[in-house]
Amino acid sequence: MASPPPSLLSPPQVPMELHKLNREKLVNALREHLTKSSRSVEGFVILQGGEERTRYCTDHAELFRQESYFAYLFGVKEPDFYGAIDVATGESILFAPRLPAEYAVWLGEIKPLAYLKETYMVDKVFYTDEIARTLHDQHQGSDRPSLFLLHGLNTDSNNFSKPADFEGIEKFKTDMTTLHPILTECRVSKSEMELALIQFANDISSEAHVKVMRETKVGMKEYQLESIFLHHTYMYGGCRHCSYTCICATGDNSSVLHYGHAAAPNDKTLNDGDMSLLDMGAEYHFYGSDITCSFPVNGRFTSDQSLIYNAVLDAHNAVIASMKPGTNWVNMHKLAERVILEALKKGSLLLGDVDDMMSKRLGAVFMPHGLGHFLGIDTHDPGGYLKGVERPTDSGLKSLRTSRELEEGMVITVEPGCYFIDALLGPAMKNPTISKFINCEEIKRFEGFGGVRIESDLYVTSDGCVNMTKVPRETHEIEAVMAGVPWPPPTK
Amino acid sequence: MASPPPSLLSPPQVPMELHKLNREKLVNALREHLTKSSRSVEGFVILQGGEERTRYCTDHAELFRQESYFAYLFGVKEPDFYGAIDVATGESILFAPRLPAEYAVWLGEIKPLAYLKETYMVDKVFYTDEIARTLHDQHQGSDRPSLFLLHGLNTDSNNFSKPADFEGIEKFKTDMTTLHPILTECRVSKSEMELALIQFANDISSEAHVKVMRETKVGMKEYQLESIFLHHTYMYGGCRHCSYTCICATGDNSSVLHYGHAAAPNDKTLNDGDMSLLDMGAEYHFYGSDITCSFPVNGRFTSDQSLIYNAVLDAHNAVIASMKPGTNWVNMHKLAERVILEALKKGSLLLGDVDDMMSKRLGAVFMPHGLGHFLGIDTHDPGGYLKGVERPTDSGLKSLRTSRELEEGMVITVEPGCYFIDALLGPAMKNPTISKFINCEEIKRFEGFGGVRIESDLYVTSDGCVNMTKVPRETHEIEAVMAGVPWPPPTK
Repeated sequence: MASPPPSLLSPPQVPMELHKLNREKLVNALREHLTKSSRSVEGFVILQGGEERTRYCTDHAELFRQESYFAYLFGVKEPDFYGAIDVATGESILFAPRLPAEYAVWLGEIKPLAYLKETYMVDKVFYTDEIARTLHDQHQGSDRPSLFLLHGLNTDSNNFSKPADFEGIEKFKTDMTTLHPILTECRVSKSEMELALIQFANDISSEAHVKVMRETKVGMKEYQLESIFLHHTYMYGGCRHCSYTCICATGDNSSVLHYGHAAAPNDKTLNDGDMSLLDMGAEYHFYGSDITCSFPVNGRFTSDQSLIYNAVLDAHNAVIASMKPGTNWVNMHKLAERVILEALKKGSLLLGDVDDMMSKRLGAVFMPHGLGHFLGIDTHDPGGYLKGVERPTDSGLKSLRTSRELEEGMVITVEPGCYFIDALLGPAMKNPTISKFINCEEIKRFEGFGGVRIESDLYVTSDGCVNMTKVPRETHEIEAVMAGVPWPPPTK
Repeated sequence: MASPPPSLLSPPQVPMELHKLNREKLVNALREHLTKSSRSVEGFVILQGGEERTRYCTDHAELFRQESYFAYLFGVKEPDFYGAIDVATGESILFAPRLPAEYAVWLGEIKPLAYLKETYMVDKVFYTDEIARTLHDQHQGSDRPSLFLLHGLNTDSNNFSKPADFEGIEKFKTDMTTLHPILTECRVSKSEMELALIQFANDISSEAHVKVMRETKVGMKEYQLESIFLHHTYMYGGCRHCSYTCICATGDNSSVLHYGHAAAPNDKTLNDGDMSLLDMGAEYHFYGSDITCSFPVNGRFTSDQSLIYNAVLDAHNAVIASMKPGTNWVNMHKLAERVILEALKKGSLLLGDVDDMMSKRLGAVFMPHGLGHFLGIDTHDPGGYLKGVERPTDSGLKSLRTSRELEEGMVITVEPGCYFIDALLGPAMKNPTISKFINCEEIKRFEGFGGVRIESDLYVTSDGCVNMTKVPRETHEIEAVMAGVPWPPPTK
């Protein structure tokens, strides 16, 4: 029997219309806003693309990845560009860096402006040293033209986006407040073409997760699972970037929510009896995926592992079954908590009334992070909190990256988890308002267990949602796939 | 017959004594300098380690890689540290960031200071908010203690290193000029322990290059070769970082010296008849490798490909045969040029007297880059130009990253190349002083050929040098390996 092909996928063509449509969406939203505010419909949106950076003082060039707002509007993969949109006419103008002649020797052919115009489907292309003059020429009125600059808070990082800056900007009127919320809101609901890219990122990452499951063996290193994932998504999916640094946590490490960074670099050996928590997602043409699988590294769930795993899976499925336009995300978080608490009670790890646990926020001891977040060009895609909306302050809920009601076209992760975190369980057991719920005798057994997270990417339809992530989820499916059964299951 | 194991290597233990020895070397050199300059032997070297960065305004944390001078002295893999050395006593002090309690939930166990002291083999560890007080307490004299800060030019990037900055620094005398040249010179000659790491990076990268050669097939994408390399070095070598972005150039792309970046992202399809130029090197515990292999993607050299390849290989070998302490690197560059020009003349691509070609700098048309550079914690390791030394200005020679005489303990790349670059050949053919050498009829055939580079990493011994790179180099070896013959060749 011939062995199956290493992948059923190949990288799709990327339609540059996608970014043209994104620009049109922005122009329409901006015009509507200006009209409503009785402002004149004119001026230029101008964004500065990302710049290439070197490592500290050296000439080590870091692999460039475009700034996300700029990527959304222009799709440009090269550094050091600017882009503008004429609000009155909708015309788009790219400004490319004027490259020195040596560039052709060291870095490659210097692409003519006409090539860039065609590639990126914009109306005009000039050099970045021509921005001020070009926009003045393009401007119809006699007064100083207005610029809509991107300046606003990222509610996940608490950083502000960097407004474009260029020589001659003092000859313009600048507006620092209008653009950011409108452009951010454009990014919240995804177009068909955007969904197709997120779907591909999900498909290749799902396949890679299955590949990792199959190859996981006791005695391996966590980073080897990362390497298998990265290789599969790049080799067969053309994904050079991941959406985020891979989290390959096994055993106790799986209770560290953002494991895998330089200070905790996926370097433990996989031990018999360990659970794994693998949170890995590839990015394709800027659009990402964000997927977590949890499974026993030896391929067989113990009853304790099944107990925790199924608690989380039930929460995951309950949330997905409830999602549709109008669903409140804070309620979904609470639903996930409740399902997990009920399962832990049924498993004798918790005692007492679940409503009482909920009101005391016990759920946050086991799931301190938020249920999910928007996903797109950023892993934590912006727009989670509209201006003026207060973040929840209760434990657990305060980690939510959005508190919004779902709308058609949103892509959001559903990622409930249940973890045994010393830094939270210790204090909880000493806190009389919640320690009464905890069956210390039983829970002792889970010291060193780590945790389970199950994460899928969902898009919201007109009357429900679609799961874009295609990995084995039931314990029997996982055990079968790890034992070599084909995935996806053959259709009869 | 059982298939051979995927790798004969495994990641070696990293001895932290390496960094302790680096610190001792610096203290000795600094004391000697101070004594010679009749300055008092006291004060503190203080360096600021790298800080974690996020992608633009988002919370996407980029995978942290330590700043190289800091890595050299302290070997610390985590961000946001400082390190000091008491010049009088030689005592080393690390300053760790005071992490918030939530760190334990999101990012992992907060390591106690005693753990860091033991792990990094330093004398004392404090928090970064204690730097000023600690150094004042440690200081023996009554006047303000002196700080040796790192400030100086990187001659490859023309950037300056960033001197440490911390709260309370105004309470110290600061010296911005002494440390940089002395510390840089320490890095130029490698210790046994440093050599062992560079050797491992070379070993796993050599093995990965061979793996890539074997798997290269017409019809693949260039990035797939990159993916195979990255996977092999991470999976079997534990190398999470590369020394630089992989250059996987085939066909005409192989004449782009630094191909592979975001604007030229290794995305061509491999065509029958293409040469490939693969410049890829893994990094292990900060120490790097830098290796280029060139071969025909279909596994068989044509006579034209052999002509160019052997010209470069002869240059590579001639240089290595001449290297020992005292050898002048500019002369080695010229030797490589001469060997290549002679071969091109023999192959009828050039006409006339080679001495004449040399004096007209014809070599720089075919090899516009320098012959090689120091290699260590940086791919372009610092120290290439001592203060006050002028860079050569002749074409080709001006690209040299060092003009120094070789010394025992240096690690330097030898990377001659021969490229058919339109942006250089075009003007050359129009320039009467050099066009007379070029046989236009014959050279036409090489339009679209691209180029060949052969790059190995050498360390200089007391009476010669050792090639740390272990890949097939002869055309018959490459053809055999690509056809499946074992590498390294079985010993009888």
